Amino acid sequence: MSEVKKKAYLAKEASHKLASITTEQKNNALTAIADALVLNKESIIEANKIDLMNGKQNGLSKSLQDRLALSTDRIIAIADGLRQIVDLKDPIGKTIEEIRPINGLYIKKITVPIGLIGMIYEARPNVTVDAAGLCLKSGNAVILRGGTSALSSNIRIVEIMHDVLDKTDIPKDVIQLISNPDRSSVNEMLTLNGLVDVVIPRGGASLIQNVIQNATVPVIETGAGICHTYIDKEANLTMATNIALNAKIQRPSVCNAMETLLLHKQFAETHFPQLANLYREENVDLKGCAKAKQLAPWINDATEDDYNTEYNDYTLNIKIVEHIEEALIHIKTYGTHHSECIVTENSQNAELFLHAVDAAAVYHNASTRFTDGFEFGFGAEIGISTQKLHVRGPMGLEALTSTKYRIHGTGQTKK
Amino acid sequence: MSEVKKKAYLAKEASHKLASITTEQKNNALTAIADALVLNKESIIEANKIDLMNGKQNGLSKSLQDRLALSTDRIIAIADGLRQIVDLKDPIGKTIEEIRPINGLYIKKITVPIGLIGMIYEARPNVTVDAAGLCLKSGNAVILRGGTSALSSNIRIVEIMHDVLDKTDIPKDVIQLISNPDRSSVNEMLTLNGLVDVVIPRGGASLIQNVIQNATVPVIETGAGICHTYIDKEANLTMATNIALNAKIQRPSVCNAMETLLLHKQFAETHFPQLANLYREENVDLKGCAKAKQLAPWINDATEDDYNTEYNDYTLNIKIVEHIEEALIHIKTYGTHHSECIVTENSQNAELFLHAVDAAAVYHNASTRFTDGFEFGFGAEIGISTQKLHVRGPMGLEALTSTKYRIHGTGQTKK
Repeated sequence: MSEVKKKAYLAKEASHKLASITTEQKNNALTAIADALVLNKESIIEANKIDLMNGKQNGLSKSLQDRLALSTDRIIAIADGLRQIVDLKDPIGKTIEEIRPINGLYIKKITVPIGLIGMIYEARPNVTVDAAGLCLKSGNAVILRGGTSALSSNIRIVEIMHDVLDKTDIPKDVIQLISNPDRSSVNEMLTLNGLVDVVIPRGGASLIQNVIQNATVPVIETGAGICHTYIDKEANLTMATNIALNAKIQRPSVCNAMETLLLHKQFAETHFPQLANLYREENVDLKGCAKAKQLAPWINDATEDDYNTEYNDYTLNIKIVEHIEEALIHIKTYGTHHSECIVTENSQNAELFLHAVDAAAVYHNASTRFTDGFEFGFGAEIGISTQKLHVRGPMGLEALTSTKYRIHGTGQTKK
Repeated sequence: MSEVKKKAYLAKEASHKLASITTEQKNNALTAIADALVLNKESIIEANKIDLMNGKQNGLSKSLQDRLALSTDRIIAIADGLRQIVDLKDPIGKTIEEIRPINGLYIKKITVPIGLIGMIYEARPNVTVDAAGLCLKSGNAVILRGGTSALSSNIRIVEIMHDVLDKTDIPKDVIQLISNPDRSSVNEMLTLNGLVDVVIPRGGASLIQNVIQNATVPVIETGAGICHTYIDKEANLTMATNIALNAKIQRPSVCNAMETLLLHKQFAETHFPQLANLYREENVDLKGCAKAKQLAPWINDATEDDYNTEYNDYTLNIKIVEHIEEALIHIKTYGTHHSECIVTENSQNAELFLHAVDAAAVYHNASTRFTDGFEFGFGAEIGISTQKLHVRGPMGLEALTSTKYRIHGTGQTKK
């Protein structure tokens, strides 16, 4: 039996035992893991050094090296993340609905764990801990398949988690790490119907597309964000400027950062030249439509391809529109249903935008950068869903639950 | 462009227009469709006759011919189904959650349509109307791909629905029927990512497996039900007998009917011979484990394969177990997470069963036959989900919704 299948079996079996573990036991285990990670930080950093060395040899980009690198501070932050999960309410066993249909049955819809969750992600060792922590708290087993370039770090981290669980009533098999670096191990996981209940991919577009194209188990798609901000004719200038800058430059590498700024022509004619200068001061590379170039001739041309690109970088498309309807059509054409914003003082236009835009999060007068489990008050997140089934937008603990109907009868039979 | 792609584009485009249609407009259209179906019943029956004739020529089984056949009574029943959907509350635009995180934003989570739903089903023309009605009420466009043997009936039914919509503000393109009988049209639909938001397969195991294996768009799995009833040591004899008979023979062809009866050995020793006779009187073919055969030597042997079979027929496996734990293990091994029942007067055992069994619906002292949208009070159903994401169990209008976060700010930017 392959590593993936064997570990999936073990995890699934262990997930059944999780059902009878109390909230207190889960919280104690999470706290103990947080403590153990900090206590063993040197050995984690040692293991991480091996990954970093290999990464440099294999030409891993600077930004990926940065995501991969672990320091004492980062390990403390990861451990703090676990402690925050401890503070969250247990999402399992909650009664969502009580139904008393005319047949005399008493039906309770309650939350239950999903079962076995497959996480497929890149070279970010913090995801190993976050995902394991969120799955444990929500009563799920997890099978982790992180990027190969973080394998040494992940092995050490999972060893530490296993050592802690060994001293508890929670079977350590609820956390499994796939160590086979071959891509076949990913694809095998994607077809374990009946064992893996859902796969959550986190990472770049090619990773996510591979999962979508090859999975036969259910998938929660995450990630891609071509986010827009539309500045309406009746926008407050200061607010519009702040939001437009923040959405692009506060952290351009993330999925909720803005990629295209849509400007009503009247706003643009008065204010775009100045706004363009502000972007230039922040080293943002601007690409514009023909009208934008008339107002700031030094910027580059925006092509169809540019509007379809998630830069995740200091690059921004500018498009000047005749009216809100043109903005809505642009977003419908190029948006990825992630986060979209209108800045306006006109409440009718705000309502039109909030209603018409088909996205997980639609903003009126706030930066798209807020689409995030922490900012939404979920306390933690395992990713941001860009699909419409099960969960949409930031995924906290609740997203890791399913439901079950418990039906209490007094001998009812169907007529 | 292929028929499937063209119709999916038209439906998706039309779905955006549905967003501004009021509940009253949707209800008026549904009522008008119900009226028109009854008014045009002769022409539907004529079209259906062609399907039935072809079916007979192609050797369609008697039971499939029965499912395919339309009569005046059946058309009236189908129209009544639509009128029931009119009476249901509009599931769209409901505020599910209001969040006021510390960043000062005001976040509203509201229900929205999923978008474009693909229905893949067999030769049951009533599904054409049910699915179109449920999708319309929930603001979704639908692309219907029914069984080829019902094509003539479906074409006539959809014509009637289109004629009605033509006289309303609802674009008729929200209901699309695929007329290409080739299986390639199914498989094309399964890979229209970005156009089709979800596919719901309804039908036999091979239809559903084809969808799961080939879909890259999200799927809601429905259907397979190997359901068990476990009669505990401390069961009430009359209740146990009624439930055990009802779960098998009230309508054996459906997914919530029982396929295996698990009996505690003490109950079995006293009562199984008599229960076996009752099944024999109802022409149920019994297959039993070795112990069951000792108590009723005339029954057949039950094999491993039998325990894995969804008979949907007058056949039943009997297994005698030492204790409730053995029953739980049997259900974990052979169950399909659909509907499972315990009959007992022992509340501790009931609780253990309800907690431990991983299924959409777990019953205490009631027949598994109740797993159904109508019985649960949902008013209608588009299928029964046997997966754990998005929706589990009977799927009513709510299952056809997604959510959207509307975020109201006052100029907030991320720090």
